[in-house]
Amino acid sequence: METEKIDLLKTYLSLYIEHFKVLAAMQQGDDSLVVLDVRNAPAAVKEVQIKGALPMPAKDLAARIGELDSTKTYVVYDWTGGTTLGKVALLILLSHGFKAFELAGALEGWRGMNLPVEPAK
Amino acid sequence: METEKIDLLKTYLSLYIEHFKVLAAMQQGDDSLVVLDVRNAPAAVKEVQIKGALPMPAKDLAARIGELDSTKTYVVYDWTGGTTLGKVALLILLSHGFKAFELAGALEGWRGMNLPVEPAK
Amino acid sequence: METEKIDLLKTYLSLYIEHFKVLAAMQQGDDSLVVLDVRNAPAAVKEVQIKGALPMPAKDLAARIGELDSTKTYVVYDWTGGTTLGKVALLILLSHGFKAFELAGALEGWRGMNLPVEPAK
Repeated sequence: METEKIDLLKTYLSLYIEHFKVLAAMQQGDDSLVVLDVRNAPAAVKEVQIKGALPMPAKDLAARIGELDSTKTYVVYDWTGGTTLGKVALLILLSHGFKAFELAGALEGWRGMNLPVEPAK
Repeated sequence: METEKIDLLKTYLSLYIEHFKVLAAMQQGDDSLVVLDVRNAPAAVKEVQIKGALPMPAKDLAARIGELDSTKTYVVYDWTGGTTLGKVALLILLSHGFKAFELAGALEGWRGMNLPVEPAK
Repeated sequence: METEKIDLLKTYLSLYIEHFKVLAAMQQGDDSLVVLDVRNAPAAVKEVQIKGALPMPAKDLAARIGELDSTKTYVVYDWTGGTTLGKVALLILLSHGFKAFELAGALEGWRGMNLPVEPAK
């Protein structure tokens, strides 16, 4: 059972990227990392978003997949880490061959650490 | 590793049902979908529940499994998506051959979208 | 697909320990269970911790693994159940052969049930 647990943890954690890596890319102007806000909500409801994020609602992602750039690494986030929308988006991205991760802690964690946000688009 | 990630995401996401499907069944009076509130708490602590949900505490579910109807599809929910109680209940239901899902976003997500609730029973 | 779901749920849930088991060990003075607060934050930000927990930031865990006792069972917790830090710590512990679990519901759930806390160390 321990091996199964370790295997599950490894694969599960490999879905995520830690906030400090995203923050470092942001601060270094590294544009190989693109943050996608996959919340299915209008800007007024979203209020703020992670600085520099592109709004890309999960419900539209499959249809708009052609707008993405296969040389980039995509980081998706939803409201909290307890929702499934980030994983829905991640599955679409990985299934289309994109390099992609879910932001660990989601927007809630990012805001809880007072990391850079801006008005939602 | 990408295949393992995709497989994990597919199986993980197949555990869940999106709120809009539950809402649609509710609005259409479709009684093939039954929502179970599996929180282990008295009504006073629970305060509200999803409209039409049946209280079925996860701790009692195995003992009360005979009350369920194998022709229905069960949707379980806990306080938030970050708890394990919904998955505990889901495992019991699936192991007994029931068709069942966990509500994506849990009660927290449902309330966050101002979907129909009623006083807890 | 049902078998895959059941297998995933079983392995996933086997990563967790329920709060009431931790509480029972605490109340019985059972020191075979050791609670590790793996939050990567100073005491002032953490404010409170689970009563009797040892501060062991996830970022330091691999380097400090020699401080742990292989006869104990470790219980790790992070802020909420929606973060990945508990699983990062759990993977390190299991990979080093320790018996370990993540606290179901995390600190948020523990506090939500008004279980014993103390000032963070």
